[in-house]
Formats: sequence, structure tokens, C-alpha cells
Amino acid sequence: MRARDLAVEYRTVRVDSDAMEAARLMAEHRLPGLLVLDEHGEPKAILPASQMVKALVPAYVIDDPTLAAVVDEKHADRLCEALTGRRVGDCLPHEATPPPIADPDDTALEVAALMARVRSPLVAVAHRDKAGTHLLGVITASHLLHQLLGVTGASGTS
Amino acid sequence: MRARDLAVEYRTVRVDSDAMEAARLMAEHRLPGLLVLDEHGEPKAILPASQMVKALVPAYVIDDPTLAAVVDEKHADRLCEALTGRRVGDCLPHEATPPPIADPDDTALEVAALMARVRSPLVAVAHRDKAGTHLLGVITASHLLHQLLGVTGASGTS
Repeated sequence: MRARDLAVEYRTVRVDSDAMEAARLMAEHRLPGLLVLDEHGEPKAILPASQMVKALVPAYVIDDPTLAAVVDEKHADRLCEALTGRRVGDCLPHEATPPPIADPDDTALEVAALMARVRSPLVAVAHRDKAGTHLLGVITASHLLHQLLGVTGASGTS
Repeated sequence: MRARDLAVEYRTVRVDSDAMEAARLMAEHRLPGLLVLDEHGEPKAILPASQMVKALVPAYVIDDPTLAAVVDEKHADRLCEALTGRRVGDCLPHEATPPPIADPDDTALEVAALMARVRSPLVAVAHRDKAGTHLLGVITASHLLHQLLGVTGASGTS
């Protein structure tokens, strides 16, 4: 089994996508994160949902937890204003790095070794040539475990 | 909306649970991670699926990626032996810390501020008294986004 056969579709956004739309996408589909592509369509970073939570919470509330308790729900409803006019690129953590990228011909063990080295929750599978990087999909850690352990039975949710 | 109303059930294992069973649980249900409880049932750590991938891959393969390509699939099938006799506690990352814990009465914004401060993908909700910590459930980042943004529509998968 090669990386190309293990890769599955994963929700992506662009660095210049609307931040609010990205947050709504994660909220609606209960996604733990999104894959962010740069302006050329190449994998640039993983945007965890917790980062969008951070972008929504006013800095004064993060700094002083006692304030969070006294902000009422009505005010909390207006949190989304924090994302107005912002782009996905503005919400990325400063230390964000591109996800590890596997070659479509890599074996499951090569993908596992790559994931283990960088301790990433997912590996992007992409074909790279002179014209650039062409994303085929991603392999998540649990999907890879499924393959490595040869688990049969319940297919679960992906 | 309080933390107690937002908390949902999450798969847990104990530090002394069988490591192989934990890995199979993540693989079968495509879980990005498990919540690990200590011997008293208190939240001890989050075990990401990528950590179990790391536990499966022989150290010499992680150190020398070129070896991963030449280990044949048949040999890869025997990776699960790496987990035989090991406990979940043996597989936790050295730097594993307990997940952030919210009080059942905390507001959504308090939970968000806690998540933002520690940048955790989830917050455990637990009632704490002299008798110990009683886990009610967890709130994931995407679930919290859903609440904060007041998203309606597709319920998605959790």
C-alpha cells in the first residue's frame, strides 16, 4: 500500500481565504483543523481549530481569566467581530510550519517514519515536479494506524 | 451556556490499559487521540494518534528514513509486536501534561480563554471536590467554535 492509495481528501483553505468562513467551516463540520494552502496551492500550514478559538477571544480575556467569567453571553455573541476582515494567514500561529509532505510512491512505513519524526497529526501527500506541488490528499495518524495494524471491522468516521 | 452543557463524551483509556488495544481503538474509530486517565480516574494526558504511530515504528527506521523504504510490507505487518506487553503509560510523550480542566459552571468564554492560553485541542470538564476529580466529558475546539459563533445548519460529525 502506497501513500497515493492511503491519501484521503481533507478540507483546505487558502492563506487569503476569509478567516470567518474558515472558522465556520471548522465549526459546522466539527473539524479539528484545516490544511492551509499558499497562493500557489502548495501546503503551507495546518490551522488547528484551537487557534481560531484563540483568534476569537479578546486578548484582555486571555490575559485575565477572571474577566472571562463576567463577560455576558450577549457580548460573547459578538466575538465573531474579531474575525471580520481578517484572512486565514493572519490567524496562523507565528511558529506555523508546512506539514510534512510524502511522495505518492512512499510506503505506509515511510509515511509513518515521517510522521513520527515530525510528530504531526497528518502528512500531506503531494506530487512534486518543476511546475510545483500538486496535493493529492492527506493521511491522518489514525488512518495510518488503521493501515499499519491491519485493523478490520468498524470503519468509523474519518 | 455552561461547560457542563457543552461537554460531550470522549473515549478514555487508563495509564495501565493495554497499548495495543488503545491503538486499535484509535484506528477503528479514526480518533485523533484519546484522553488518558490515571489510576484514580483523573485526566492525566492526551494521547495523540501520531504518538502511537511513533511507538509502532522501529527507532532505526525513524533515525534512517532510507531504511523505511526497504522494509517490505510483510515485515511492516509485524509492527504491532512493538506494542506487545506495553501499557498506555509507556507510550505517552515524555513532556505529556494533563489537559486543561474547566469547571462545570464555567462559561463558554471561560473555556475558550483556557483553551487559548494553553493551546490545547480540547478541554476536560470535571467536577472537583475532596473526593477527587469527576470527569463529565470534554469540549473540543471545533465544538467550542460552534458554540461561540452560534453556527446553525449542518450538524457535521463530532
